[in-house]
Amino acid sequence: MTRKIEVGILGATGTVGQRFIQLLEDHPWFEVKQLAASDRSAGKRYRDATSWQLEGGPPAGVADLAVEEAVPGRGPRLVFSSMASSQAGEIERAFAAAGHVVVSNSSHYRMAEDVPLLIPEVNPGHLGLLAGQRRERGWSGAIVTNPNCAAVTLVMAIAPLKPFGLMNVMVTTFQSISGAGYPGVPSLDILGNVIPYISGEEEQKLEAEPRKILGELVGDRIELLPMEVSASCHRVPTIDGHMVAVSLELERRPSREEIVEALVGFRGLPQERELPSAPRRPIHVMTAPDRPQTRKDVNLERGMATAVGRIRECPILHWKLAALSHNTLRGAAGAAVLNAELMQSEGLL
Amino acid sequence: MTRKIEVGILGATGTVGQRFIQLLEDHPWFEVKQLAASDRSAGKRYRDATSWQLEGGPPAGVADLAVEEAVPGRGPRLVFSSMASSQAGEIERAFAAAGHVVVSNSSHYRMAEDVPLLIPEVNPGHLGLLAGQRRERGWSGAIVTNPNCAAVTLVMAIAPLKPFGLMNVMVTTFQSISGAGYPGVPSLDILGNVIPYISGEEEQKLEAEPRKILGELVGDRIELLPMEVSASCHRVPTIDGHMVAVSLELERRPSREEIVEALVGFRGLPQERELPSAPRRPIHVMTAPDRPQTRKDVNLERGMATAVGRIRECPILHWKLAALSHNTLRGAAGAAVLNAELMQSEGLL
Amino acid sequence: MTRKIEVGILGATGTVGQRFIQLLEDHPWFEVKQLAASDRSAGKRYRDATSWQLEGGPPAGVADLAVEEAVPGRGPRLVFSSMASSQAGEIERAFAAAGHVVVSNSSHYRMAEDVPLLIPEVNPGHLGLLAGQRRERGWSGAIVTNPNCAAVTLVMAIAPLKPFGLMNVMVTTFQSISGAGYPGVPSLDILGNVIPYISGEEEQKLEAEPRKILGELVGDRIELLPMEVSASCHRVPTIDGHMVAVSLELERRPSREEIVEALVGFRGLPQERELPSAPRRPIHVMTAPDRPQTRKDVNLERGMATAVGRIRECPILHWKLAALSHNTLRGAAGAAVLNAELMQSEGLL
Amino acid sequence: MTRKIEVGILGATGTVGQRFIQLLEDHPWFEVKQLAASDRSAGKRYRDATSWQLEGGPPAGVADLAVEEAVPGRGPRLVFSSMASSQAGEIERAFAAAGHVVVSNSSHYRMAEDVPLLIPEVNPGHLGLLAGQRRERGWSGAIVTNPNCAAVTLVMAIAPLKPFGLMNVMVTTFQSISGAGYPGVPSLDILGNVIPYISGEEEQKLEAEPRKILGELVGDRIELLPMEVSASCHRVPTIDGHMVAVSLELERRPSREEIVEALVGFRGLPQERELPSAPRRPIHVMTAPDRPQTRKDVNLERGMATAVGRIRECPILHWKLAALSHNTLRGAAGAAVLNAELMQSEGLL
Repeated sequence: MTRKIEVGILGATGTVGQRFIQLLEDHPWFEVKQLAASDRSAGKRYRDATSWQLEGGPPAGVADLAVEEAVPGRGPRLVFSSMASSQAGEIERAFAAAGHVVVSNSSHYRMAEDVPLLIPEVNPGHLGLLAGQRRERGWSGAIVTNPNCAAVTLVMAIAPLKPFGLMNVMVTTFQSISGAGYPGVPSLDILGNVIPYISGEEEQKLEAEPRKILGELVGDRIELLPMEVSASCHRVPTIDGHMVAVSLELERRPSREEIVEALVGFRGLPQERELPSAPRRPIHVMTAPDRPQTRKDVNLERGMATAVGRIRECPILHWKLAALSHNTLRGAAGAAVLNAELMQSEGLL
Repeated sequence: MTRKIEVGILGATGTVGQRFIQLLEDHPWFEVKQLAASDRSAGKRYRDATSWQLEGGPPAGVADLAVEEAVPGRGPRLVFSSMASSQAGEIERAFAAAGHVVVSNSSHYRMAEDVPLLIPEVNPGHLGLLAGQRRERGWSGAIVTNPNCAAVTLVMAIAPLKPFGLMNVMVTTFQSISGAGYPGVPSLDILGNVIPYISGEEEQKLEAEPRKILGELVGDRIELLPMEVSASCHRVPTIDGHMVAVSLELERRPSREEIVEALVGFRGLPQERELPSAPRRPIHVMTAPDRPQTRKDVNLERGMATAVGRIRECPILHWKLAALSHNTLRGAAGAAVLNAELMQSEGLL
Repeated sequence: MTRKIEVGILGATGTVGQRFIQLLEDHPWFEVKQLAASDRSAGKRYRDATSWQLEGGPPAGVADLAVEEAVPGRGPRLVFSSMASSQAGEIERAFAAAGHVVVSNSSHYRMAEDVPLLIPEVNPGHLGLLAGQRRERGWSGAIVTNPNCAAVTLVMAIAPLKPFGLMNVMVTTFQSISGAGYPGVPSLDILGNVIPYISGEEEQKLEAEPRKILGELVGDRIELLPMEVSASCHRVPTIDGHMVAVSLELERRPSREEIVEALVGFRGLPQERELPSAPRRPIHVMTAPDRPQTRKDVNLERGMATAVGRIRECPILHWKLAALSHNTLRGAAGAAVLNAELMQSEGLL
Repeated sequence: MTRKIEVGILGATGTVGQRFIQLLEDHPWFEVKQLAASDRSAGKRYRDATSWQLEGGPPAGVADLAVEEAVPGRGPRLVFSSMASSQAGEIERAFAAAGHVVVSNSSHYRMAEDVPLLIPEVNPGHLGLLAGQRRERGWSGAIVTNPNCAAVTLVMAIAPLKPFGLMNVMVTTFQSISGAGYPGVPSLDILGNVIPYISGEEEQKLEAEPRKILGELVGDRIELLPMEVSASCHRVPTIDGHMVAVSLELERRPSREEIVEALVGFRGLPQERELPSAPRRPIHVMTAPDRPQTRKDVNLERGMATAVGRIRECPILHWKLAALSHNTLRGAAGAAVLNAELMQSEGLL
C-alpha cells in the first residue's frame, strides 16, 4: 500500500474518539486527517478540546489539528464514528447519504435490518447487506457498525461454540468505568461499590445483539439465531475491561475437550489475511483457576484478544465460563478499526 | 434478664472474631468473658494480639483481656467460634464434647447430617437436630452453625419464594475483600481488578448449603430441598457486602406482585420474638432501578437486613433479582449471634 | 428546651445539604422545616430532587418535603447554607438582610472582615464581629461561616499549639472525593490515581483561612496571626476524610511531651457547655506508628473529632505530625451545626 | 555487540524480580540465563515458583527455566539482585567475593562508604568507588546499588537544581502498593484508605540517600551534600508510581524560568551514550495545572522518565513542585538495568 487512506473521526473528543486516535497513530493503512466533534469544540485545537484520559497526551500529529464541525460531504470518505447514540441517527445517515463510509461504534443503527453488525472473525459475510443498504436507501456511502462493548466479549467467547448449537445463554457482566465515557460515572458512585445496573438499555442490547451477529445472511437479510440470552449488567470499580460470567446450554452436549479445542482453534478472516489490528489468536484459553482477571489480562494482544477461563460444568444449563476483553479496544475503537480493515481487504473502501 | 450470659470467643483475633467483639460490646443478653485464639497469640493482651480492622479500636472492656489458649471445658458454656475450617473440626468437637454450646461460623460441620445449618428466619426448626446430635455423639454440649457468607445472601432472598416451588437458581456473586479475612487478599491482586474465583470451594458451598437450609426436618434428619443451584463466585474491590445476581425458576410461576409481596412481608421467629439482633424487616425491597449497591446499602438495619432489587423477568428461567447483605454481619458474626439469641429464646442455652 | 428551633437548608440537594439533613434528623435543638435548592429542583419532593449519596435514603420526615425556591424572608429565621460559592454571595446577603441568621458552609464570605470564620473550640470570641456586621451592613440577620474542609483539619491540629508560637506551617493534603460534591470527581480521574491539584483555589484557602481563624479579635476586627502556611493539595481515592501531613516551626520550641499534652488536653466551649454535636475530646492523639488512617479513623466521635498521630521531629522546621478529620462532618455540615449550637448557647439565635 | 552478556537474577520470584525478567526479555545487551531464589522455590519451574503480578504471564524464554538456589561462584558473572534486605547483606557479599558483579536493588549496601549508590544521569562518577571497594574488601567482583524507589523520584527532580544550591527539601510521598512487593499490603489496609507510614525506615532512607547520591567523590569517598531532607511517607491506593510533593530552599534563589530550563534541559551520560534503557528526556515538565498524575503519567518513556509539574512559589521555603516516577521501573528494576548498562559502557563488566 503506497499511500495511506485518509480518515475522519466523528466524536473525536470522547473516550472512544481518543482510542481511535491512539490506534491510528501509526496505523499502516489509515491516517487521521479530520477531527469532528460537537459545535462546542469546533474551532479549538484538539489538545484543548479534549480531556485526554489515556496515558500521556494526544499524539503529536493530532494534538494541534483543529477540531471541525461535522459536515457531511466534507473531508475523507472513510469516517469512524463514536457519536452519542442520540445524535448518531441523523448525522451518520447524512454522512452515508453524502458518500461517506461510516464505520460506527454508535448503537443507533446496530439492529437496523440492512446494517451489518460486524465482528470480523465471526460474521464477515454480513457485509453482504451493504449492496441492499445502498440500493434501498439510495446512499452512495454506507454504514457498518460494531457491537456493544459487553456483547463483543460474550460473542467472542461463544461464537466458536455455535457449531454445538447455542440454545440458552445466561450472562452476568462486570463492566469497567471507561465503558461509560467521560466524565461518565461519578467516583462517589463507584469507589468501593458495585452498581447492578447500567443505563441505556445495556441488558437489552446484550440480549438482542448476539442473535443478530450470530445469525445467517439469507438473501438480503439476517436470520436471527434462535438463541435466548438473559443478561444482568453491573458496573464495578475497574478501569478497562468487561468481564462476563456465562452459563450455556448447547444442543449437541460437547465435552470439555471439544469446547476447549473449539475455543483454542478459533480463527477467522482477520487472522487468515493478517489484518493489521487482528490478534494472532482471537481467544486465549487460560488454565489457571483464577484467570482471566480484569486488570491483569485486559491487554492481551494489544487489547484485541478475548481471554476465556474457568470452563466448568453448570448444574443447570451445561457449561460455565468466564470471559474478558478490552471494552474500548476490542469492544469499541479497535472493533471499528478492524471492521474498516476487513472492508479494505474486501475491496469495499 | 437479670444477669448476662457469659460467652467465650474461639478465634477472637480474626476479622470475624473482631465483629463478634464489636457486636457483643453492649449486647443485652451476652457478655464476653473469654477470648481464645491460636497458641501464637495466647498470653498477649487482646489489643496487642489482633490487628483491629474495624473503625476505631477494640472496645475498652475487651482490649486488655488476655488472649488464652483454647482449652475445652474451661470458660463459659456458650462459645462463638470463627476458627479456620482446618482447625474447627477437632477443636469444636472437643468443646462440644466437654459441654460447651458451640455457635460456629466455621464451615467444617455445616453439612454434617446432625448439625443445624441455621438462619433463624428461615429454618429455626432445624434446631430439632440437636437432640439426636447429643444422643448419637454423646456430647453434653452441642454445635450449631451458620451458612457461608454468600449463601446467606442468596437464601435470605429466595427463602420467601419457597412456597412458589424453587427449582433452579443461577447465582453470580460479587464478594467483598473482608470475606477473605486478614491479611486475606493482597492489594496487588484486587485493586482495580475482578477475580472470577474464590478459593476454599466457595462455589460448591454456595451450591450445597441452600439445599440443606431450605430442606425439611423429617424425624432426625434434614431432607434436602430438590433444587439445583449453579454458582459463579467473584472477588471485587469492595470492603463489606456480598452482592448476588440471581435468576430463578419457580414451579408455580408467580407474578411480579406475588414475588414482591412475599419478599416484603417475609418475617420469622426473630421478628416475632424481637430478638436483640433481629432486623425489623429481614428483607428490604428497593425500587430504584440501580439499587441495592454494595457500599450504599450494606448497613441496612445495622447490617442484618438483606436488600433485594431489580426484580425483573428472565428470558430463560423465570425471574431475576439482585440481593445484598453484609458478609461479616448478617453473613458471619451477626448470623451466629442471632443463632445464639434464637437458642436462648428456645431455652436451649 | 421545650420546643425545637425550626431551620431551613439552602442547597439542600447537594452532598453537604444531605449531611445537614442527616445530622439534623434527631437533633435535640433543631428541626428541619424548609428545604431550598436551585430552580431546577423547586417543586419536587426531596427524595426525587436529590441523588442521595449517604447510606440508605433520606430520613422519612424529610423525604417527602417539597423542595422550594430560596426566597429571602420566607421560612425559618435560622438557615444552614451550602450554596455553591458562585451563588452564595448574593443569596446569603439577601437572606441576612431579610433577617435570617445564615450559618454558611460556603466560601464566599469566609474572609470578609466582618464575618466570623468560626471553629467553636478555637475562636468562639469571633462571634463578637456580629454586632459590627449588623450595624455596618444594616442587616437584621447575620452571616457566620465555617472554614474550608481541609483548613478545619489543619487548624484543629495546630490550634492547641498556638501558645508555643506558630510561625511556619507546611501542609500537604490527602483529600477525599466527597469534598468535591456530586457528581464531582469523575471516576476515570481518580480510581487508582492521585491528582496533585484541587480547583477553586484550594491551596490559597488553606494558606489564608488559618491566619484569620487563629487571629485575635481586636475591637471590631480580626488581627491575622502572623504565621505563614504553605499548602500542597491532592485528591486521592478515598471516600470521606481529609488527611494532612504537617511540618511546624514553633517559636518556643516545645518538647514532644509538651506538644502531646497540649493536644490531649485541648478543650473548648463546646465541651464545657456539652453542645449536642461537640466531641468529648476534640483531638484524639494516636500512638500506633501507622495511625491515623483515613478509612479507619474518619468517624471518631461521629466524625466530629480530629485524629492526630506520627508526632516526630522535623529536620528542617521543628515538629511533624499527621492529622485527619471528616470533611463533610467536622469539615462542613457538622461544623455549621456546631456553629449554630454555639450561637444558641450564646443567646444569638 | 555480537553476543549478549549472560545475567543471573537473585530474588527472581519477587515483584522486582519479575520486572527484571520483563525488562530483559528483549534486551539488546543482556540475556537472562539463571534465576535464583529462596530454597523454597529452588527446583521449580519459574512459572510455578512465582505469582506473576504483571500483565499476561512470564516471557516464554524464562517461564520454564528451573529456579536455582543462589550459590556464589556459579552462573553468570553479572547478577541483578532484589533480595530482601535482611538476606542481601550476606548473600551479595558472598557473590561479590566470588567474582560476581552484583547490581543490586536491595537497601543493605546503599549507604556503605565504598559502594556506589547510583543514578546514571546524576552521579556516574561514583563508579570510581569500585577500585577502592575491590582493593579494601579483596573482592574480585563488586557491588553497585540503586536508590530507594521514592528517593529516585525526589533526586531526579532536584538533581538538575543542584547548581542553584540545594539547602532544605521537604518531601511528602504518595507511594503505590507495588512498592511493598507481593503479597505486600493487605487490601483491607489500603482500599479507600491512606496510611501515613511505611515500614522499613522509609523516611530515614529518603532523608539520607539523596545526600549521598548528590554528594561528590573526593578521593576514595563520597562527601555528602550538606542538604537537609525532611520526609513524610504515605501509602495510597495506586498500583504503580510514587508521587512526591516537594518544597525546596535554594541558595541562589533562581527564577521560575531558570528552574524550568534546568529541568527541561537536564541530560546525562545515559542520554549521551544512548544506553538502551535510557529515556530520551529524563525529566518531562508538565504544564497542565493538574499534572503529573500517578495513573496517567507513570509510564512516560517506558517508565524511565520522571514527570515534574506544579512548579510554584512556596511562602516558606522557596519553590514547590510535584514529581512522579515509576517505582518498580525507574525506581527499582529499570534503575538497576540502567546501572548495568552504564557499567558496560564504561568497560566495567
